[in-house]
Amino acid sequence: MKNKVGREIPDELLKTGLEPFQGQYYRENYEYTKAAPTVMAYVKPNRNKVMPSLKATIEALHLHDGMTISFHHHFRNGDYVCVQVMKVIHELGIKSLFICASSLGKAHAELVPMIEDGTITGISSSGVRDEIGKAISEGRLKTPAWIRSHGGRVRAIETGEVKIDVAFIGAASSDIYGNASGKGGNSECGVLSYADVDAKYANQVVVITDNIVEGVNMPASIKGIDVDYVVKVDQVGDPKKIASGAIRMTKDPRELKMAEYCAEVVAKTEWFKDGFSFQTGAGGASLAVTQFLQKYMDEAGIKMGWGMGGITEPMVDMLHKGYIRALLDDQAFDIPAVQSVHTDPTHYEISCSEYANPLNKGAYVNYLDYVILGALEIDTNFNVNVVQGSDGLIQGAPGGHPDTAAGAKCTIIVAPLLRSRLATVKREITSVTTPGESVDVLVTDYGIAVNPNRPDILAQLKACNLPIRSIEELADIAESICGKPAPIEYTDKVIALVEYRDGTIIDVIRQVKK
Amino acid sequence: MKNKVGREIPDELLKTGLEPFQGQYYRENYEYTKAAPTVMAYVKPNRNKVMPSLKATIEALHLHDGMTISFHHHFRNGDYVCVQVMKVIHELGIKSLFICASSLGKAHAELVPMIEDGTITGISSSGVRDEIGKAISEGRLKTPAWIRSHGGRVRAIETGEVKIDVAFIGAASSDIYGNASGKGGNSECGVLSYADVDAKYANQVVVITDNIVEGVNMPASIKGIDVDYVVKVDQVGDPKKIASGAIRMTKDPRELKMAEYCAEVVAKTEWFKDGFSFQTGAGGASLAVTQFLQKYMDEAGIKMGWGMGGITEPMVDMLHKGYIRALLDDQAFDIPAVQSVHTDPTHYEISCSEYANPLNKGAYVNYLDYVILGALEIDTNFNVNVVQGSDGLIQGAPGGHPDTAAGAKCTIIVAPLLRSRLATVKREITSVTTPGESVDVLVTDYGIAVNPNRPDILAQLKACNLPIRSIEELADIAESICGKPAPIEYTDKVIALVEYRDGTIIDVIRQVKK
Repeated sequence: MKNKVGREIPDELLKTGLEPFQGQYYRENYEYTKAAPTVMAYVKPNRNKVMPSLKATIEALHLHDGMTISFHHHFRNGDYVCVQVMKVIHELGIKSLFICASSLGKAHAELVPMIEDGTITGISSSGVRDEIGKAISEGRLKTPAWIRSHGGRVRAIETGEVKIDVAFIGAASSDIYGNASGKGGNSECGVLSYADVDAKYANQVVVITDNIVEGVNMPASIKGIDVDYVVKVDQVGDPKKIASGAIRMTKDPRELKMAEYCAEVVAKTEWFKDGFSFQTGAGGASLAVTQFLQKYMDEAGIKMGWGMGGITEPMVDMLHKGYIRALLDDQAFDIPAVQSVHTDPTHYEISCSEYANPLNKGAYVNYLDYVILGALEIDTNFNVNVVQGSDGLIQGAPGGHPDTAAGAKCTIIVAPLLRSRLATVKREITSVTTPGESVDVLVTDYGIAVNPNRPDILAQLKACNLPIRSIEELADIAESICGKPAPIEYTDKVIALVEYRDGTIIDVIRQVKK
Repeated sequence: MKNKVGREIPDELLKTGLEPFQGQYYRENYEYTKAAPTVMAYVKPNRNKVMPSLKATIEALHLHDGMTISFHHHFRNGDYVCVQVMKVIHELGIKSLFICASSLGKAHAELVPMIEDGTITGISSSGVRDEIGKAISEGRLKTPAWIRSHGGRVRAIETGEVKIDVAFIGAASSDIYGNASGKGGNSECGVLSYADVDAKYANQVVVITDNIVEGVNMPASIKGIDVDYVVKVDQVGDPKKIASGAIRMTKDPRELKMAEYCAEVVAKTEWFKDGFSFQTGAGGASLAVTQFLQKYMDEAGIKMGWGMGGITEPMVDMLHKGYIRALLDDQAFDIPAVQSVHTDPTHYEISCSEYANPLNKGAYVNYLDYVILGALEIDTNFNVNVVQGSDGLIQGAPGGHPDTAAGAKCTIIVAPLLRSRLATVKREITSVTTPGESVDVLVTDYGIAVNPNRPDILAQLKACNLPIRSIEELADIAESICGKPAPIEYTDKVIALVEYRDGTIIDVIRQVKK
């Protein structure tokens, strides 16, 4: 059957109990009993949680075939934790594991042979990029990968759809009780927001660190009361790749133009008033928005109440300059963000459930006024693809895209109309990550389109000379330049499920024919 | 049958599935699946949680007969929240409620008529003091009250033995999302540690405050993602009674002598070394220990790693003077403690589960080196009563007594041998709150007794000229002065169950015959 964004969801999948996507607010007021971990009580005093090695830990955990284990991606491209753990598991010959990661990418190429030999037979992740994305795209994983948004992953764990047997939580520091943090030592990652749900819902929890501190490691993102074991390894990550240095602001005139448009869309809509809330991505144009926004904030004499997200230096700068009253941080993208969350008293770590979980009692995304997001492709119904390349291979990640889009009062997609002669705005996109009903404005270098379901925004923007076009016009321009691309041919094999944040299936990705 | 501390537990109780106390580490390695709340998902953006009145809130909650509702006691004797809520419930005619409070006392006399008219038919609490203690002691509550330690309450909720339908959480401040804190406004209570488990495990959660702040109220003890409604009332408490001003250090020579003994017991035992952990109570002698301890710390050239507990000014002073590296705070007893936890960067709020829950993966009590506790009565097996007066009426509270006693490496009870011609040390005590097996040393004004199960401590203390006696000797002295008290006569009616922290029944309290 076709779901609400017109994507064909195979009956075999629906027969397993999965539901097709049925609208962004389909689960509103859904009542459910949360999942809960099966834990072991440590009543006796002074139990020593510190283990001599990863191998001893994995043996103590009784880790066995078929279990679900989890990892977070706060160490980003510098992550050494996942591969270190998996190598030990691989040596022990444990098979058929389901990996529930918050994201996988460049740092995880060494998992590919483990996918091929059946050590890893299932994956849930936001991103599956680079080598591991290629392996999944080529159908080498035994079962379809679950592509989940950040909020969707928390939801899947909190509802019990994913039951984590063992969470492996890399941390920049820990005390002997297991109180762990993204601060301290040589591998600082800022926050541990994605691991919060793992610590609370996994049956067994292991903290892996290269920095065991004396006394109590407070404030702790991961609480010792949820931790079974603490293991010291030589290195949890490569500091140079964990956080990049300061991101240089774009000088690309096309990106700067789009950023100006975005800032003007924000400034000319009704939610731009003192105390407004805002999130922007780490892409060139998205980042550049912040500098143009400051001018409008000066003119209006207003401050941002809170800025959220993956935090980058431009947002930290705005905090320091007094443009922002508080930063809510679920991921540190660069060194200035890491430093700021550890030192600025109004820069706060939030858990991923607080950030984006659709099925709690109101995540912060629900109170966002503006979010600025990117797109690989967007169709004329404003459906956005941020997961699959136009060549059919998985190369992106939903991240918080569908979460913030659903929550924000004004969701702005910024993307160039074309990228190296491939159209971004198209009649039909490769797959849908974020439904068009949650996207309000598209800003391109060829003009701005407003979703017809937001006449309020259209009216506000029309009043101020911005180059408004219909999205069909933009698609026509793109096609006139790029031509119609030859359709990709797929086999019948579903290699990934694109899950909407509420657990319904918004799309499936099939294997590309060679 | 008689349980492990020799107390008779009625068969009718055991038939309901309750277990008798079987030793402090009976539940070690007990495996269980945690309870979880049944919640409603708020997917749609911008839901307004702020309710116009308590009445409108209680109607929106569909609060009805037979439900379990909860309160915390961080506002202490100045609490206006519980009575305000209960008055509205009472007006609405809702009956047969079970109140799961962290503690009840002076502020709650107005609940007594609601006990009598069947609005309240069950109570779980640490303390049931003053008027409400009297009502329960007189058998006016329909079912036996559950007397639970702080750790025991968290356990009961986390295991699902107590299922909270609605948690009413008073807070010094909240934002419109429900992020709530003990800081801000006119009713600061320091921390909200006891309410942490309520917010996480109750199906519905209401934050009640007199101070709704602009923007985000961070850092928040209670997370908005767990909160359904926020209600503003005129006052959550009487600031003068919430926290007392600075407690004056005792000048009573008897208390000072006992404090000196305690400090020497600490200083002369093996765990007194750099980084040691320590908790003391708010009683005269317990508090005074801190001043004597500093001398020994100076001599030894050591610092305390962390101090924990109900925090009072002497501990805050030691933090400021550099004697303590970190304070772990689950309750602010006075204004200096309230101020310190909001301003001192090494004074940390911890949840009550982190503090004392016996069935998580290792509460801080498990890592305590020393705890100094009081006693109403102690028997020659070192069993301690801190709940029931020698007249048979309930007047105290276990608080963290059984929790810290079980966890600490060296548990010191400090109590005068007699109080106004009533013996503290006796052959038989009125009821048992904390089992003797978890008590190591008794310090009285007539000498010090060491539990025979701790020959290690006895050897260490004998080496240093402290007046060591057997506890039998102390009991004999007490009896020789006070005489044998006439036994209290009880009816058959059980009016309270004294639950040990692990959920087993350590004692029952019967109604005193008139």
